[in-house]
Amino acid sequence: MTSAALGERPAEPARETIRVPLEGRAYDILVGRGVSGELGAHAAVLGARAVCLVTDEAVYALHAPAAEASLAAAGLRVERVVVPAGESSKSFTQLQTICDAMLAARLERGDLVVALGGGVVGDLAGFAAAIVLRGVRFIQVPTTLLAQVDSSVGGKTGINTARGKNLVGAFHQPALVLADTALLDTLAPRDMRAGYAEVAKYGLINDPGFFAWCEAHWADIFAGGSARDHAVAQSCLAKVAVVLRDEREEGDRALLNLGHTFGHALERAVAYDGARLIHGEGVAVGMALAFRFSVRLGLCPRADSDRVDAHLRSVGLPTLLADVPGGVGTADDLIAAMGQDKKVRAGQLTFILARGIGRSFIAPGIAREEVRAFLEDELARAPS
Amino acid sequence: MTSAALGERPAEPARETIRVPLEGRAYDILVGRGVSGELGAHAAVLGARAVCLVTDEAVYALHAPAAEASLAAAGLRVERVVVPAGESSKSFTQLQTICDAMLAARLERGDLVVALGGGVVGDLAGFAAAIVLRGVRFIQVPTTLLAQVDSSVGGKTGINTARGKNLVGAFHQPALVLADTALLDTLAPRDMRAGYAEVAKYGLINDPGFFAWCEAHWADIFAGGSARDHAVAQSCLAKVAVVLRDEREEGDRALLNLGHTFGHALERAVAYDGARLIHGEGVAVGMALAFRFSVRLGLCPRADSDRVDAHLRSVGLPTLLADVPGGVGTADDLIAAMGQDKKVRAGQLTFILARGIGRSFIAPGIAREEVRAFLEDELARAPS
Repeated sequence: MTSAALGERPAEPARETIRVPLEGRAYDILVGRGVSGELGAHAAVLGARAVCLVTDEAVYALHAPAAEASLAAAGLRVERVVVPAGESSKSFTQLQTICDAMLAARLERGDLVVALGGGVVGDLAGFAAAIVLRGVRFIQVPTTLLAQVDSSVGGKTGINTARGKNLVGAFHQPALVLADTALLDTLAPRDMRAGYAEVAKYGLINDPGFFAWCEAHWADIFAGGSARDHAVAQSCLAKVAVVLRDEREEGDRALLNLGHTFGHALERAVAYDGARLIHGEGVAVGMALAFRFSVRLGLCPRADSDRVDAHLRSVGLPTLLADVPGGVGTADDLIAAMGQDKKVRAGQLTFILARGIGRSFIAPGIAREEVRAFLEDELARAPS
Repeated sequence: MTSAALGERPAEPARETIRVPLEGRAYDILVGRGVSGELGAHAAVLGARAVCLVTDEAVYALHAPAAEASLAAAGLRVERVVVPAGESSKSFTQLQTICDAMLAARLERGDLVVALGGGVVGDLAGFAAAIVLRGVRFIQVPTTLLAQVDSSVGGKTGINTARGKNLVGAFHQPALVLADTALLDTLAPRDMRAGYAEVAKYGLINDPGFFAWCEAHWADIFAGGSARDHAVAQSCLAKVAVVLRDEREEGDRALLNLGHTFGHALERAVAYDGARLIHGEGVAVGMALAFRFSVRLGLCPRADSDRVDAHLRSVGLPTLLADVPGGVGTADDLIAAMGQDKKVRAGQLTFILARGIGRSFIAPGIAREEVRAFLEDELARAPS
């Protein structure tokens, strides 16, 4: 290429490319400010002629016009499905609506679904893409920090049922993830904090250095500087490493559930009422509980648990059961709410516990009595 | 093993075992009279503690008691879901009902779904198994000839939508198939004939020797002698060979759709009214049309097409559009009904055509005008 030709190219946004080398289904995660502007070009390169764009009502006004313009500029036919914002859209009803819309749009196997939104949209649109025509490809354009660092990576898709979250779904890897960190500029502070819980989680699982970096740079992540790009990229790398070891959650992938056994139970306890608790907040409380439970079982130094608690509180995240407005029921209620978790095997409870910051491990066969006694003590604590 | 120990064992039913060596998901198809009596023993060997048995109202009375007794005798907890008989159960509504029932039964990832029934039950229960907890294993116990030789093998599962059959689903291989040919003794003659269309199809695709054998032995297949076991085993082998070459229908697997592009359009034309046309009958007409269309295009000797027609008619299967009671609309109606077929790529029609018996091939890019002219001539033919 001549330097003249080079000179004509628009400046590429700064980005980091993370390759997910799954056999036969390898894909890239692009992280950086402005990468979603290339959506149309990428969709065209993937060979699609039509795209079904799935988004929600809240994201639609903010980001759909730019996404649709990018797709149209690349010569793609665009069909749009807009679902209500919120967890309640992860339902059989919305799944059927989206599948019907994709078929009405005469989507063919070589075409693409684009999930533009947070975790709800990604899980729902990804699941629809997994089952329409027994599988079409999809691109994730996550618009929340939670989705950028967690749900858009790894191929888990699904919906909720009356018995719990994500109990129906599929493993369906995206063809591309565009994690545009500039999209987070419009994110509500509470959603930013909730997503940050999952960022901190990667440090707590197995990377104490990253946790220390988070302690030092969290304000920059929230402000949108280069620390944000690094945090998102590092989180994606960490998740990809686990997914590659264990795509279908038969082993190590369960480490990603640090804070989630307690967290999911709390979400169920508030009946998924986002006014009281959103997912990342549940994870924050859950991680703090997992560390305190580890201390109680004699597995983890108290200093590490205190440090986890202090950091989560410093960014404004909850860490106590009493921080959840309106109460979460009894210890038995919470244990019952854990019972239908997909991690249950043969009726025993499995937790992700820790021997310290960055030293988490899978602990199967935890006795219900231990859990109940711990939760009763936690329930007796006053709000901080 | 001593001969005394051998002497104590109950006589094993005669069976053929067909291994499907898919990497990481290898499974067996057992074919023979009485093999479904071993259901419980196999489920226990697979490590399940609970089983969700899915069947339909018609099959329930005939075969569910024996299946449940076999499972209970092996110490398994059995939950049962009974759906209405018929194609209309392949719906989002029934899918949700079954998923909810599986979750209510607290099925865990190591447990099993058993699909006891014809193609509808297998497709529906298999799809539910594919998505509940993002995938639990399932055993197919097909009770119709169609299901034994076609739908229970190969891992395609799914439901219908307003826009067509099987447009939503998953590839989910069973953990075991028990093709008990004795279960076909209770099958209605019309269903036996319809299933036989798929048996003959395997000869027409690429095995002229098997087609000739079918011409000689079809009456024995219907009567339930050893020819039936051979026909089922040979059909499974043929399908497995294609599936192994192309599990996800990116190439050769499309050959299995011989007769199905026309056949599906006919099923849509009668609005899936089983009183007028059932799937195998549509396939029979579709195969006859595919051969006549091949003759018209100068691809296939007329003698081969006539032989196909004569054999299908001799077993009592329809071969003409006029054989479908109540009419099937215009040529344009039929072409429109083909339009949403999953085989469509970039708006062109793909057919499976033949250069002769046992010499079928994938013919993409067939011009709509050719199809219309052919169908108009076929519509003008009198009933035979």
